[in-house]
Amino acid sequence: MNIFPLIAIGSGSMNNKGDLLDVRYQVIVTQKNEELHNPLGFAYENYSDLEAMLKDSPEGHSLKENFEKELSINKNKRLVIHQINKDESVKNICDAYLKLYLLSLRIAKPNSLNLDGIFANLPNNAWTNFGPIDPEELDAFRLEHENTYVKSVDKFPCMTDYIVPNGVRIADGSRIRLGAYLAEGTTIMHEGFVNFNAGTLGTAMIEGRISAGVVIGKNSDLGGGCSTMGTLSGGNDIRISVGEDCLLGANSGLGIPLGDRCIVEAGLYLTGGSRVEVLNAKGELIEVTKAANLSSKSDLLFIRNSLTGSIQCKPNHKNVQLNETLHNND
Amino acid sequence: MNIFPLIAIGSGSMNNKGDLLDVRYQVIVTQKNEELHNPLGFAYENYSDLEAMLKDSPEGHSLKENFEKELSINKNKRLVIHQINKDESVKNICDAYLKLYLLSLRIAKPNSLNLDGIFANLPNNAWTNFGPIDPEELDAFRLEHENTYVKSVDKFPCMTDYIVPNGVRIADGSRIRLGAYLAEGTTIMHEGFVNFNAGTLGTAMIEGRISAGVVIGKNSDLGGGCSTMGTLSGGNDIRISVGEDCLLGANSGLGIPLGDRCIVEAGLYLTGGSRVEVLNAKGELIEVTKAANLSSKSDLLFIRNSLTGSIQCKPNHKNVQLNETLHNND
Amino acid sequence: MNIFPLIAIGSGSMNNKGDLLDVRYQVIVTQKNEELHNPLGFAYENYSDLEAMLKDSPEGHSLKENFEKELSINKNKRLVIHQINKDESVKNICDAYLKLYLLSLRIAKPNSLNLDGIFANLPNNAWTNFGPIDPEELDAFRLEHENTYVKSVDKFPCMTDYIVPNGVRIADGSRIRLGAYLAEGTTIMHEGFVNFNAGTLGTAMIEGRISAGVVIGKNSDLGGGCSTMGTLSGGNDIRISVGEDCLLGANSGLGIPLGDRCIVEAGLYLTGGSRVEVLNAKGELIEVTKAANLSSKSDLLFIRNSLTGSIQCKPNHKNVQLNETLHNND
Repeated sequence: MNIFPLIAIGSGSMNNKGDLLDVRYQVIVTQKNEELHNPLGFAYENYSDLEAMLKDSPEGHSLKENFEKELSINKNKRLVIHQINKDESVKNICDAYLKLYLLSLRIAKPNSLNLDGIFANLPNNAWTNFGPIDPEELDAFRLEHENTYVKSVDKFPCMTDYIVPNGVRIADGSRIRLGAYLAEGTTIMHEGFVNFNAGTLGTAMIEGRISAGVVIGKNSDLGGGCSTMGTLSGGNDIRISVGEDCLLGANSGLGIPLGDRCIVEAGLYLTGGSRVEVLNAKGELIEVTKAANLSSKSDLLFIRNSLTGSIQCKPNHKNVQLNETLHNND
Repeated sequence: MNIFPLIAIGSGSMNNKGDLLDVRYQVIVTQKNEELHNPLGFAYENYSDLEAMLKDSPEGHSLKENFEKELSINKNKRLVIHQINKDESVKNICDAYLKLYLLSLRIAKPNSLNLDGIFANLPNNAWTNFGPIDPEELDAFRLEHENTYVKSVDKFPCMTDYIVPNGVRIADGSRIRLGAYLAEGTTIMHEGFVNFNAGTLGTAMIEGRISAGVVIGKNSDLGGGCSTMGTLSGGNDIRISVGEDCLLGANSGLGIPLGDRCIVEAGLYLTGGSRVEVLNAKGELIEVTKAANLSSKSDLLFIRNSLTGSIQCKPNHKNVQLNETLHNND
Repeated sequence: MNIFPLIAIGSGSMNNKGDLLDVRYQVIVTQKNEELHNPLGFAYENYSDLEAMLKDSPEGHSLKENFEKELSINKNKRLVIHQINKDESVKNICDAYLKLYLLSLRIAKPNSLNLDGIFANLPNNAWTNFGPIDPEELDAFRLEHENTYVKSVDKFPCMTDYIVPNGVRIADGSRIRLGAYLAEGTTIMHEGFVNFNAGTLGTAMIEGRISAGVVIGKNSDLGGGCSTMGTLSGGNDIRISVGEDCLLGANSGLGIPLGDRCIVEAGLYLTGGSRVEVLNAKGELIEVTKAANLSSKSDLLFIRNSLTGSIQCKPNHKNVQLNETLHNND
């Protein structure tokens, strides 16, 4: 990524000790003065102008005041000016949120940023209708603010509470973490889920779960409740992906990377270690091999034979057709 | 349906351009002066009275003003008076919301209304704690309204934000779309989901997903995470239904219409194309046939033999018993 | 449990008829003057002091007034002082909420309290951003309170709206009922679910569903979308549990209690009635038996042979390792 160095301006919520709980960025600018994010058109001269704020120089001082005013910074918030020079590991909460923003703003693709250390640098917040609250301060806060509801207690917030990319539908925002990458034309139904550093590269219908690190190619369809194996927990260490024009059937599961135009039958969980009967177009057995050996190959159909119970792989001739009506997300 | 013609009165939210984003109906009256909906008892004479409002006649004018006052119409909202004469395709947002209301109010059963064109006529909104917002206006709105949260970005809102039918429990409102039809005695657990134009016809325990167009008969139980194939995406074109006294086991799936008193074993995904061993009461093999050929037949038990791996269909003698305590939803 | 007798003080919301809709307890004290709950340090002398409030004695009167003030009791709320002398069946809403509190506060383990009658004594509420509302009063309430949203219609509220135990992450609060027991170090991902009277006894990664009555031992991992059979509906009557260091694969299901260090392969639904091929370490067939006969045994791996389709049970030598980064929930 040659977007670095960059500077970002925003505001952060604080707990009673003054620790940052989150950061909401409003402006992101590269050293080449490319504006990566500035939806509200905040005014500044150029990158050096923003750099002046970091140095706390007299020039930067009045710009800072302007931002504080425009961002309606109040006593529980503070202005955040943050620079990342190189794509190194995550060292603080400002790094963490900025990288999650780069992903959800579609500036950086999943697996293209160094996210080491992100868990350690994100505080675990109670996410309430009054914003993030330090869990230790929650009981006292509730007593003062009737009708405080805690929608999650997590290190990651919901993406839609920070960023809503254009051309997407997201039926249940609580299932998309900040740091998800959703291409235009993506529809996430209620049973869909997208972790940070994961997502879709084009039009897609997602009713299943996209684990951290997993990427789905364009025109692919993840059926209701289907699972893609992640690498964060559960012992799997191969990075899963789905190519273009693929279909994972409802309640199916995927433990290998798929090529293009592949189908996994509804209800079939294909792990890397599954032994699979490979058939040719005539239905003749060619070989028996581990599913992992079929990784990233195209035009395959995976089923469980309903009479013999064996997992089989056949040439796939069926085209997955997304329903256009469902992807005109205007 | 002989409920048409009908007139409905309500209020709608608007974006900054004055386009309607949603409609909340408070009164629905048929030409025969049958009140289909008027929970708060808004006062008017009869159908012609309401028609006068449509014609913007002097008689209608004061009634209009009354409604505007009682519905607390403010500057981001407008009064909606809408007439549907015949059940034709959906032509605008007022049609769309009115038909979704008819379904969720239990006035029209799923698959009984012409819903063609509904996707094209529903705007994709950001559904926030301040009501629906045009996604293009969201960033500016957030800056002015701290603590704006976006629970979904979708063409359909949650049913419970508009209508809560009597005698139901809905553990997670974000998973029931406006346009769902839930009969009295229905309990939807956290993993349940009901799309628009779909639902339950009697007492039911729903912990699985009811896709658009799918209808569940009374005293049936959909286990946790089970799937019913829909016709909107994924390539299926047969309308699925579940009869009375049926059980879909947890994590199972259904690709054929079921008759009454049928069971699909937990974890088994039965697609229409699955070849199935049909056994008699003695356990003898009668025939091998496609599951689709068993569509809508009653008293069947579908399992995958845990030793041979074959999908089998046997006569079902077990009665599904719903736990009464769980369905007294007062 | 020798925590009884105990007295608890809190506040409750009421409908327009004055019936209690919920109770929020702030203080729980045993007769031995052990404070089980008092996060905000409300002042009182001892158990007898609280008992004086119950008797409405002059001594109790001023304490009552203090509590009313500190709990900001308004006209839709009332002070609740509730005593449970013995662990008998649930007789009213105050009993019900107090027992749910004891569970979620980790004072009583799942299956250790008498919860008979709990469904009958919990009203079915519309849970809104303005607190619980009687569904019959909802339409009128909405007209007076613009932007009223109903997140669920249920007898049980979300735990996080009442209690957030320390050291947990809960990605989607709407999926954890009050009465869930979550040990420190528990992470519940978006697809995780925990019913009341169920939970985790130590560090755990939960991306599947923990049904009522089900308990998960420490260092166990429930994969995305996995199912544990409950006893409330669906016809199962054996109480399921998972031992320590176990893994339920994604989209798997469990119908027997598991011992320690067991694995159920992703996508396999193991019901009690499944006949299973038991193999020794050399892969030789030892016996064929019902899964129920393997209940609570340790060091077992359950898979479905991907070539023969039979469910098999082998000695398990693989250690389940939770990712430590994911369980440091500070």
